[in-house]
Amino acid sequence: MSLTLVIANKAYSSWSFRPWIVMRHFEIAFKEITIPMAQETTRTDMLRYAPTGKCPSLHDGDITIWDSLAIIEYLAESFPEKAIWPRDKAARAQARSLSAEMHSGFVNLRSLLPMNMRRPPAKRALTPEAAADLERLESAFATAQQAFGQGGPFLMGAFSAVDAMFAPVVNRLHVYDVAVSAPTKAYMEAVMALPAWRDWETDARAESWIIDKYEGP
Amino acid sequence: MSLTLVIANKAYSSWSFRPWIVMRHFEIAFKEITIPMAQETTRTDMLRYAPTGKCPSLHDGDITIWDSLAIIEYLAESFPEKAIWPRDKAARAQARSLSAEMHSGFVNLRSLLPMNMRRPPAKRALTPEAAADLERLESAFATAQQAFGQGGPFLMGAFSAVDAMFAPVVNRLHVYDVAVSAPTKAYMEAVMALPAWRDWETDARAESWIIDKYEGP
Repeated sequence: MSLTLVIANKAYSSWSFRPWIVMRHFEIAFKEITIPMAQETTRTDMLRYAPTGKCPSLHDGDITIWDSLAIIEYLAESFPEKAIWPRDKAARAQARSLSAEMHSGFVNLRSLLPMNMRRPPAKRALTPEAAADLERLESAFATAQQAFGQGGPFLMGAFSAVDAMFAPVVNRLHVYDVAVSAPTKAYMEAVMALPAWRDWETDARAESWIIDKYEGP
Repeated sequence: MSLTLVIANKAYSSWSFRPWIVMRHFEIAFKEITIPMAQETTRTDMLRYAPTGKCPSLHDGDITIWDSLAIIEYLAESFPEKAIWPRDKAARAQARSLSAEMHSGFVNLRSLLPMNMRRPPAKRALTPEAAADLERLESAFATAQQAFGQGGPFLMGAFSAVDAMFAPVVNRLHVYDVAVSAPTKAYMEAVMALPAWRDWETDARAESWIIDKYEGP
């Protein structure tokens, strides 16, 4: 099995970060190709790898998987010996529900606070809509950890795909200095201490591309 | 296994339709509870079943799964003898990619053309953004059917979860009289001829709730 993951900027691409951190954390070997966003050739370049003209996509021989969640399911099936989803059926059902909720939701929080792996933490005020997203987020974290979080600091105890789906949100809460509960803070610290997180952050800091719409106070 | 699916209006709830048509088509027994949208008690009623306050949700004893895609994954795991996802690995990877793309995408087409199972077909003009979504949609359908559609009229040949994910779009293309290619038209006809589709449509016609924002020319 020879896997290639095509991603966009590590500084900004939240959708790229999700499958990448799964693969790095679970020690799945892969080649990576980066296509920087907001360049003249970006769309043409991305279309060479995925029919949507977007990143990320995973390539396994002739098989192309586009979309972060579909990639994660493909990895979970391909590496059954790794607990990419939690082993417990009820935990897995909740992890998939939360991941799908993230996949199509939390739109106000995400658009107000773009992921930015290089931003020095500085407060940005929440709109009421983003505050409502945050409230649901913290409630979801608390429920998951109370039900399934006994075995470790992550949402389902050990690190799993659901933590990858929320990793970009952890960055957002951190770099926009969002006021969160103590358990959310502890969760964020555990995620940001992962070696895979650190590796991604180091690579992001080494990038030279700056996109204005993802910067600013 | 005793399953309950909580759904919203059959006339309008595209997200409810997706897991419902999977369960009905694959002859999975379930109880259903309907919570009508846009009523004074809608949110309170939905919060009794799902932490997001939204439909659909699936309930299996103590396990709650919210979000249509997570429900489909739960069903696929619970009924491995049914080919809810295609059996072929490459077809399954493409089916999941398309399903995830639908889950978070085609936003312009979806917002311009809300699902309406009772609407007599009548043309609504597409915005350029919705037309771009349609172009991608038809290209995705064509690619899937060319690669995997030999065994039947659906995207991957036999009916599978990816067709359920696109079932509400089939309704939209039909009732807003959108101009589509002959292969798309044939695909739509196959989907609309499914007994499970017919059952949902019959139930939708029997509903008395009217929501103005989903009606109109």
